[in-house]
Amino acid sequence: MYIKKQRLLTPGPTPLLPKALHAMMGSDIHHRTDDFRNIYRSVLADLKEVMGTANDVLALVASGTGAMEASVSNLFSPGDRVIVCVAGKFGERWAEIVKAFGLDAVVLQEDYGKSVSAQRVADALKANPNARGVFAQASETSTGAQHDVRAMGQAIQKTGAIFVVDAITGLGTMPLDIDGWGLDVVIGGSQKAFMIPPGMAFMSISPKAWTFGETSKLPRYYFNLKKEKKNAANGESSWTPATALLLALAEALKYVKTLGMDKLVQNAQQLAAATRSAVTALGLELFAPQSPCSAVTSVCPPKGMDSGVIVKEYRDRFGSIIANGQGSMKGQIFRIAHLGYFDFADVFALIAELEIILAANGVPVKFGTGVAAVQNAYAEVALAKETVTA
Amino acid sequence: MYIKKQRLLTPGPTPLLPKALHAMMGSDIHHRTDDFRNIYRSVLADLKEVMGTANDVLALVASGTGAMEASVSNLFSPGDRVIVCVAGKFGERWAEIVKAFGLDAVVLQEDYGKSVSAQRVADALKANPNARGVFAQASETSTGAQHDVRAMGQAIQKTGAIFVVDAITGLGTMPLDIDGWGLDVVIGGSQKAFMIPPGMAFMSISPKAWTFGETSKLPRYYFNLKKEKKNAANGESSWTPATALLLALAEALKYVKTLGMDKLVQNAQQLAAATRSAVTALGLELFAPQSPCSAVTSVCPPKGMDSGVIVKEYRDRFGSIIANGQGSMKGQIFRIAHLGYFDFADVFALIAELEIILAANGVPVKFGTGVAAVQNAYAEVALAKETVTA
Repeated sequence: MYIKKQRLLTPGPTPLLPKALHAMMGSDIHHRTDDFRNIYRSVLADLKEVMGTANDVLALVASGTGAMEASVSNLFSPGDRVIVCVAGKFGERWAEIVKAFGLDAVVLQEDYGKSVSAQRVADALKANPNARGVFAQASETSTGAQHDVRAMGQAIQKTGAIFVVDAITGLGTMPLDIDGWGLDVVIGGSQKAFMIPPGMAFMSISPKAWTFGETSKLPRYYFNLKKEKKNAANGESSWTPATALLLALAEALKYVKTLGMDKLVQNAQQLAAATRSAVTALGLELFAPQSPCSAVTSVCPPKGMDSGVIVKEYRDRFGSIIANGQGSMKGQIFRIAHLGYFDFADVFALIAELEIILAANGVPVKFGTGVAAVQNAYAEVALAKETVTA
Repeated sequence: MYIKKQRLLTPGPTPLLPKALHAMMGSDIHHRTDDFRNIYRSVLADLKEVMGTANDVLALVASGTGAMEASVSNLFSPGDRVIVCVAGKFGERWAEIVKAFGLDAVVLQEDYGKSVSAQRVADALKANPNARGVFAQASETSTGAQHDVRAMGQAIQKTGAIFVVDAITGLGTMPLDIDGWGLDVVIGGSQKAFMIPPGMAFMSISPKAWTFGETSKLPRYYFNLKKEKKNAANGESSWTPATALLLALAEALKYVKTLGMDKLVQNAQQLAAATRSAVTALGLELFAPQSPCSAVTSVCPPKGMDSGVIVKEYRDRFGSIIANGQGSMKGQIFRIAHLGYFDFADVFALIAELEIILAANGVPVKFGTGVAAVQNAYAEVALAKETVTA
């Protein structure tokens, strides 16, 4: 028995920014006051700034899935033809939501671990000139792959369809030029790269998407984007806001702005590259080697080993909470996250722990091999060239 | 620029137990109520339990130095002959305090990094049969050496002197059989192995020490141990207690009791051994190799290098706050702590970071060498023998 600090290191909820956590203690504040209205306005303005868009940005008291539903129920009508990219559990969620609301979905299916190509989206748009929308994940957290939403956006922009992007783990882990790439709806969640607990979602909505809202005929009440937009202009939310999370988000956004959104993205990319290099050095296979996202790295366990053993040993031996595969991927992969408040120290420890777990399970490992790969990745980005002699 | 989580990893203040930190939010409580009296009583009882003594245990609103002063001002009289072991900055503090209160000190000086031997204490007692007290550090945090307080206690027990032990970083990092070894006064502090912020000290006082209190002629008011004892029996402190810290300590003691005080000690010992093995593998020299304590490991920087560079690069590159040498040792050593809420993941990261810092400063390092030493230390204690093939 020895001390094991419990470290939350999953791709959501992600590690919390301490200052954001502490800010939640200020939530003895009423939401229908000018004090709070100022905070609300400033959070929405900061979100807009870090998302880098001229589109409207709204916040909802919901998990990311709530915002996904809101994009469907507010912008589409029963029978609308839509194209849905499915290459993982979250792609399947898009398919389920549009089906639940009676849309007519053309599903572009791809194997788990791979990505739906922009070419397939372009082809599908040609084959379905009446398509009103395209749904995709920027980053498919369940498999660790990412979609080329830039190329997809180029194809979609020329058509009458809008592009609805689940960027819940994409925001803060990959460049997303929302306005330049024609990402009409971009959805984020509080418990991802924004470093605060779950309970809030946000979304940007383009002028093109708003025109869809004018003709949408689906029933809605709680998720009413037009109403949210009107209230947001007055520093108000339509319903009671999650005050504690708002206060936390205000602090987290301050931190992200100081760091720079581009640096937050780069941080995730660097840690993801370091992790890929480490697990490869240890002889393990990446589950999504072709187009890996930087939110999370999915790793296949050694042949014949259940990934749950690795996840459990991470927790039992070291208190490190990492993610197993989800749904049908359970036991097939383990996932090391990078989105938001993660740093090199996390990766040094996670890889040193992985080496021990492998050794404890009879996998031949030379201790330090994976860690050295992470150190070399650090040296690559942060040591002057002449000092990288090690 | 990349994310650097600020991690407090110094030998005090030490990393905070999250549950203890959160408990401080409950400090909208008045201290002269039965609710608080129950907490106060229970904290003192738990302290007594984890310290493993039948002696009285009292708490003070003060840093550890306050309790050091209290032991002098409450138990001695001007002109009393005392023996003071000095092998570092905290030993010097004992010498300063007894001087400030007019005691007649025989100082047993030893080089920094070494320890005053029990034999020297025994000899000094023989040479000074009128000695009323012996003062020493269990663990001398400024150099990383420890004293053999067990052997010292054996020599002192037979005499009329009492043994006053600064165990501020000794408690929770080394076995201390307070009653069996004749440690008459044992002093601890909140911000050490007890995992909470600074602001509280505590001390155990033996029956033999209490008899000294009867004849002590030094002026005192705030630090009045007899008065504290009387009030403590009623669940009260003499003056306003640090309620937030008390609530935090209650949680921390719950944690320590669940872990087991012996396991807390073992944890520090294991991390210290792993750290010594790692820095040695990296070709660095230990500052106190002969009798290293487990509270902190003092390491000499490579020849010609100021340890402040290492401390600064730990902070600037990785957000890891470690300690430089104190006083005259500044620039001569850097100190990696192990006391309290530290775990192997901390050490994996700290050593990986050290390797990078050395490389960045032109010291030849094979990345992973030190980390592998830590991993082997982990394997030694936590992997079944047959699996240690790595």
